[in-house]
Amino acid sequence: MTLPVTAPTLVDEITFDAAGLVPAIAQQHDTGEVLMVAWMNRDAVAETLSTGRVCYWSRSRQALWRKGETSGQVQRLIELRLDCDGDTLLALVDQTGVACHTGRRSCFYRAARDGDWQVIAEVETAPDELYGDR
Amino acid sequence: MTLPVTAPTLVDEITFDAAGLVPAIAQQHDTGEVLMVAWMNRDAVAETLSTGRVCYWSRSRQALWRKGETSGQVQRLIELRLDCDGDTLLALVDQTGVACHTGRRSCFYRAARDGDWQVIAEVETAPDELYGDR
Repeated sequence: MTLPVTAPTLVDEITFDAAGLVPAIAQQHDTGEVLMVAWMNRDAVAETLSTGRVCYWSRSRQALWRKGETSGQVQRLIELRLDCDGDTLLALVDQTGVACHTGRRSCFYRAARDGDWQVIAEVETAPDELYGDR
Repeated sequence: MTLPVTAPTLVDEITFDAAGLVPAIAQQHDTGEVLMVAWMNRDAVAETLSTGRVCYWSRSRQALWRKGETSGQVQRLIELRLDCDGDTLLALVDQTGVACHTGRRSCFYRAARDGDWQVIAEVETAPDELYGDR
């Protein structure tokens, strides 16, 4: 047995899927609220860890997505966690404002109640305030 | 405009991926702890909603996976939520015992600290107690 020449980096221990992506859950660190789920590639994980600001990979734009870059609703990283299989990340964050593009705090604002998906959270910031000309 | 003949069911409003799956986060309803992430297909969602016990789709076994069937560590559904894109589920659950096959409460037991993934949660139930002959 030979010792590894280089210690594995944090990113190397993550199992990315065939597209080179891993799902990442963002959870507000103090309230426990699950805010959103998005994807990260290797570069997004590395940037998130090095800058302390959460960065995802936008599958629609095929580009790094620095959360809050357009909307101002940034996520400061408190701690990054990895699950037992190494294929899902949990980012404990401090969310500025709202996480959801609809202007709600969390993307999970619909609940299965009485046979329907009922909206259970109010819009806190109008989307055109988040994404309009400023 | 004509009225729909049949009201859309809860499952019909979920966007499943090319493999017919949707990721589902399990969160302990009262503490807010994120326990695990697994996959559901249409049948798993329908069974979860109808029985009130969380059922996933096992990609490795290609079969419905009634959480706790082998280990006894069942998840009682408190509420199922859907995100803005309709492609991720959040199950608020009451977890019996531990969620992780390693015997830890949560699968997210590794944290990026000091350049390494550090184990931050103890094994609460030995895996052979969960999966051994009983």
